[in-house]
Order: sequence, then structure tokens, then C-alpha cells
Amino acid sequence: MEKAVLITIGDEILSGNTIDTNSNFIASELKNIGIKVTQIFTISDEIETIKKTLKTAFESGDLVITTGGLGPTRDDKTKKALAEFFNDEIALDEVTFNHLKAYMEKRGRQDILERNKEQAFVPTKSVVFQNHFGTAPCMMMEQNGKLSFSLPGVPYEVKPLIKDQIIPYLQEKFNLNFIHTRIVSVVGIPESILADTIENWELALPENIALSYLPVGTRVKLRLTASGDNEEMLKLQAENEIQKLLPLVEGHVIAVSEDKIETILAEILTERKLTISTAESCTGGELAKMITSVSGSSKYFLGGMVAYATDKKIKILNVSKDTVEKFTVVSEQVAQEMAKGCQQLFDTHISLSTTGVAGPGKGEDGKEVGTVFYTIRVNNQEVTSKLYMPHLERVDFMNFVSQKVIQDLVGLLVNS
Amino acid sequence: MEKAVLITIGDEILSGNTIDTNSNFIASELKNIGIKVTQIFTISDEIETIKKTLKTAFESGDLVITTGGLGPTRDDKTKKALAEFFNDEIALDEVTFNHLKAYMEKRGRQDILERNKEQAFVPTKSVVFQNHFGTAPCMMMEQNGKLSFSLPGVPYEVKPLIKDQIIPYLQEKFNLNFIHTRIVSVVGIPESILADTIENWELALPENIALSYLPVGTRVKLRLTASGDNEEMLKLQAENEIQKLLPLVEGHVIAVSEDKIETILAEILTERKLTISTAESCTGGELAKMITSVSGSSKYFLGGMVAYATDKKIKILNVSKDTVEKFTVVSEQVAQEMAKGCQQLFDTHISLSTTGVAGPGKGEDGKEVGTVFYTIRVNNQEVTSKLYMPHLERVDFMNFVSQKVIQDLVGLLVNS
Repeated sequence: MEKAVLITIGDEILSGNTIDTNSNFIASELKNIGIKVTQIFTISDEIETIKKTLKTAFESGDLVITTGGLGPTRDDKTKKALAEFFNDEIALDEVTFNHLKAYMEKRGRQDILERNKEQAFVPTKSVVFQNHFGTAPCMMMEQNGKLSFSLPGVPYEVKPLIKDQIIPYLQEKFNLNFIHTRIVSVVGIPESILADTIENWELALPENIALSYLPVGTRVKLRLTASGDNEEMLKLQAENEIQKLLPLVEGHVIAVSEDKIETILAEILTERKLTISTAESCTGGELAKMITSVSGSSKYFLGGMVAYATDKKIKILNVSKDTVEKFTVVSEQVAQEMAKGCQQLFDTHISLSTTGVAGPGKGEDGKEVGTVFYTIRVNNQEVTSKLYMPHLERVDFMNFVSQKVIQDLVGLLVNS
Repeated sequence: MEKAVLITIGDEILSGNTIDTNSNFIASELKNIGIKVTQIFTISDEIETIKKTLKTAFESGDLVITTGGLGPTRDDKTKKALAEFFNDEIALDEVTFNHLKAYMEKRGRQDILERNKEQAFVPTKSVVFQNHFGTAPCMMMEQNGKLSFSLPGVPYEVKPLIKDQIIPYLQEKFNLNFIHTRIVSVVGIPESILADTIENWELALPENIALSYLPVGTRVKLRLTASGDNEEMLKLQAENEIQKLLPLVEGHVIAVSEDKIETILAEILTERKLTISTAESCTGGELAKMITSVSGSSKYFLGGMVAYATDKKIKILNVSKDTVEKFTVVSEQVAQEMAKGCQQLFDTHISLSTTGVAGPGKGEDGKEVGTVFYTIRVNNQEVTSKLYMPHLERVDFMNFVSQKVIQDLVGLLVNS
């Protein structure tokens, strides 16, 4: 298997100002064509550091991909480091300049063409992959059969460059093994017990199948990665192992293919032609967002309500004022009435509701931070549960609760 | 300034399955106490690789923090590598075991205590920081005045360990410089023009103040980082530089302190006692989620509606059926009516609406993917804008549009 090393260049990552999402995307795309990322370096924008890291990276990787350090401002030094590392010089590339010119013209920004002209300067030995969504081109260098690609750092520019240009190039260039991945989602068993339960199965896995444990909230994803030169064989082999695994964890498996819980939900709702709506308080829109982040969700997600203020819960979702007064707004009863009102408002088979205190301040009725009640209503049946997650930060709390609600719904639907 | 190196251990990052958010959090917390992260290594869970990376890390850092590789399953090898690297042995630590026992008891999970017992085995020379939100303890090792901390990989466990235990420890241990950061948010000037415009100012900055350009969507954040031993002086110095900067970018600055656009909005709305609501289509809840992710947002955010289905837009938001038929659902007119209906439904000063096609499939009326209309309504005035972002993936699109809507609103409020 070809090995890749990623280098993320930029002080904005080291300072904690920006999360590096590029590495994640690139690693995942490479994995799909059977290239394994063995190491990721995140370094600062200094010529010597970049050169030194390129050297280390080429010692272990056949392929090095750098992101960042190619913008038009003064703190970008990647191109210089690249030229020095490969004993090359930087010169204006006419094709790249014409591309840049066309790019600027299309956006009515010819006025800044001169100022951005240096973006068309590249190492003379480089092969340029033009950037259709930004001004910094991607440069490929080759030496002793090893490749480096240098990309800008903006994720919106990285994604199409990788997906549409670099991946197809690599597929043709290398003669790659096939990779087949399956993910089995297990709920209701702690990781350590799960490991014990399936130990013998795991030890007996064929050598070309690797297993990883990926805990996500209260769910554990078991990932099987099979590699080999016969795609059909790989699929059969993986399916075979999964069939051996399933009886060991009976009643705890919520999916055997898809990865994200919202995608698993999408499959079930689409197949069964069910519609869904949401009524959120403490999750503040995250639950709706998670559901709608799946392409095609408009087929089953009819709408959602973020009823933050109590009087909106009463007015729009038909929550009774008495219930609020008697049980407080963060209560089982209010969650139930929200779900019921939501189902009626949007006229859906399923409705989900959340009410709780995301913190860090206490709720208006003094309920403790981290408490949440949520109701899952399917036709005329409903289940209400309570979670208490005081240690989560606000955004993590919103995310964790939304994941858990969808996961519970999937569990309900799968077992009904 | 003390230098830190972070090591992220785990194949789930290298495989692109999980985004490394720990490094971001740790780097940002360390920066606040004046410790600079100079490098981040992401490596696989192999003893030799971990040892080799520890060696490299200690060559440049005074402080090394590792995350990951401490779970109860078989693919975790960090502890072994740690003991070998520091010429130490692993033994049961009674205090840690008692902590683990209490942790399990509190959760009614004494049944799995034995199975998790090995989590209480630590290198004998280590100082243990107990983990209150998980079973793997944090271990500190010291050698030649340099420190290493090894933490589990779960973000919910990392955050409190860093914030409540490690940061206070480091503050006391080292005699640290003060760091003062200011962020000036600039809109409406491309990065390259901005760089030209403020070049002379940038070149004249004092040596102890560093400037970074951080582009986020269509906004550029200028970050000034000042370091020194007198906190008051630093603040004055930074303020002084910002006062020199402001006239150079007049009319383009939307904030001079806060970082995130939703936090900037929070300050303005709180100060002016304005309330807000949202009516979303293509952003699917992301806009509401972004606004509610700020602590205290329940004071100004009264509610939101995700009206995915067209008939819900008509029924709940009072969008006229004729308007939809005449102009299609993705139109300026529908965005306007959604904002108006939303303002009435939630009775707020401000309402925001979005309608568009997030893709990748075409919208029901054949509108092109990436098209979105959004209306910002403040009292009786409204502004409707169009965006066309065909190159963004679904989730990025939802996020970009939401950022842009809030940014435009802030721009409107600041300049009114």
C-alpha cells in the first residue's frame, strides 16, 4: 500500500484559532483509493521548518501533500521552501497566469490582477493543477519516483482540487489495491465489554482485514478495513466476517454499513416512507441541522421549530401553560407536549423534541446545567428519556444530545 | 516563551474518520497562558513510532502533550511507549485505582471494574491527574526540567483535564509572560488588497506584537498577539496599534475584539436589547444553531423555524401561495415573505430568512444548486441578498451561508 504524509502549514492551526479539517478530508479521500496516511505534521510558516519537514516526510512517504502557506499575504513561505527543497527556481507560468486572469475576469476583479500576479509564479519543474475556486494554484513536484502536491489552505479550495484532480491522477499513476470498508454501529455495550465479547472473533480475522474501535458518544463504531487486489472477493470476505460478528452482539447493532447516525436514519426513513419533524429547545437547531445535513433529507424532513422562549413553546407548539407551571419547562411532560405539538404542526409520522439547560448559566427555573428531556414520538407512541451531561461544553452538549436522540430513534425503528 | 509540542495518537485521525479537535482546544488554551505550540504530530498507535516522536518532540519543546491511545481496547499502546521512553515500569497505582472504583460505583458499573483495572496501571515515576469524566487517567512525566502529559483521546475528557488541572498547574510551574490577543474583523476587502492597504502599519508594528491574517468565508480576521511581562502595558500597546489601524480600513471593520461572528452579534443584541428569530430553508437549522451556540443567547433568540417543505412555509410562515407559484420557492420574494412571517410569529425586532438549494441534487423547481436568497429584516426595514456558491459541499454550504447572513446583519447593525 502506498504511504502518504500530510503537512499542514500555518500558524492559525498551531495557535488554536482554526481547526484543521483539510487533513481529515484528504486522509479520508486517500483511504478510499487505498493510500494510507501514516503521519500528519502541523508546522509553522517558516522556510527552514517547511524544508526540514519535507525531508522527514519523504523518508517515510511515497507521497507528500501540503496544505496552507500559499495565500497572497506576507506570511506565506511555502513556495519558496518548495523551490529550495527541490533545487528549483520560481518563475511566472503563463498558463497559470492566464487561468488567474480568466478567474479574476469572471468575478469582475481585474483591478487586483497585478496584485495577485505572484500567485502565478511557481517552481519551474512543477506540474500545475489549476485552482477553479481560488487564486493559489496546486503544484506537483516529482523526484525519485516520489510525489509532492502543494495546495492552498482554504477548505473550499482543497476539496475540489483533491476530489476532482488529484485523486483521479493518483488512481491512474499508481497501481493500487482495492480497499473495502464496513462500519458496524453498536449501542448499549461499553467499549471494554464489547472488546471482551468479540475478542475471539477479532483474533481470528484474516490478515488483510483490520479492525478499529471508534467510540462516538454512547455508540461504538467497529470499522473493518479489508484490502486486496480483488474487489468482489473483498466484499464477500468482509460480509462473511460481519455475519460471524452479528450473533455475538445481537440486539445491540443499529447499522452494518453506514457511518453517520443521520445517514443511517436517512436510509430507514426513505425505505419506510416516513416523515419527521423536530421541536428543539436546548439543542437550538443542531438536531434539525444534523438531519438536514444529509442530501435528500427534504424528502422526509418536513420542518423544525426552535422554540427557545417558553411562550413560543406555548403559542406555537401548543404546550399547556399549566404543564409548564406545574412541572417547569425542563421536564418530561413539556418534552412530551412539545413532541405532540410538533407532530401536529408539521403533520409528520415522527416528531422529536428536546428541552433542557445547555449552560453554562442555570436555566430560568433553576434546573441544573446539563439536564435534558427528550421525546421520540412515532405515530401514536412515544418514549421520553432524560440525559444528564453536566461536563459538556455548550456546543458539545447540543451535538451530543442531538446524536443521542437520533441514535435512540434509529434503535426504536430498527427493533420495531 | 515556553514551547509546546502536541502529539495526537490514533489511527482514527490518520484514516480520516475523526477530526482532531483536541489539538485545537489545547493549543488555544496554552496560547492564553503564553505557551506557544510549535508543532503538532499526528501518528499511529505503534510503540516505536510513539517513542520516536516523543524524542523528536522533546528536541524542540519544553512541554509535550499527547492525546489518545489510552483506552481499554487492544489497539492502545501509549502507556507502554511512555514507560519504555522514560526507562520506567508500569505498576498499579492505588490512588488511581480507588478513583476508578469510585467512578464506576457512582455510575453503577462495578461489574466492569476488573475489566478496567489495567487503566489504573501507570508508569511508576508518573504524577497522575485524575480523570473525572472517563476511566483513563492523565499521566505527567518529568525529565531534565521538561514535562510530558499523556491524556486520553476523548474530547469530553480532554477539555476538563486541560482546563481545570493542567493549565493551572503550568501557570504555577512556569514563570510565564502575559499574552494579549485582539482580533479585528474586516469585511468587504479581499485579503490581498487589505495586505497592501495596511502594509506600512504592519511593518511598523513593535517587535512583541505579531500579526496574522485569518480569512473566514468573506471576512478577514486580523489577529494581533502581544506578549510581554506587563499585562496592562500590553493592553495599552495593542489598543494603540488598533487605533492606528482603524482609519486605514474605515467602513470595513465589524468588530475589534471578539472572534466569532455569532459572539459579535451576541454583544450587539445584548447591548441594544434587540430580539431575533430565524426562518430557514436551505440552512436547515444551522443558522439557529450558530446563534444559540453562544451562552446567554436565550435572552435575545426567541425562536426559529426550519420550514423545509414548501407547504409549511405557506402554513406556518404565511408565505403566499401565489408568490411561490409566480417566483418559485427559491426567490427574493419568498425570502422576504419568510422573514416577515417569522418576525410576526416570534414577535422579534429582527428576523432572518434563508431559501435556497444546498445540493447536491437540484431543487424541486429546478433552481441551480448553490443558489440562496436571504433576507435580513430589522423592524420595518429589510435587505434581501443572493449568494451563489455551487462549489461548496452541503454542510459547508449550510455553514457558509449562515456565517454570511450573521455577518451581514452585524454589518447592518454596526453601520446604523
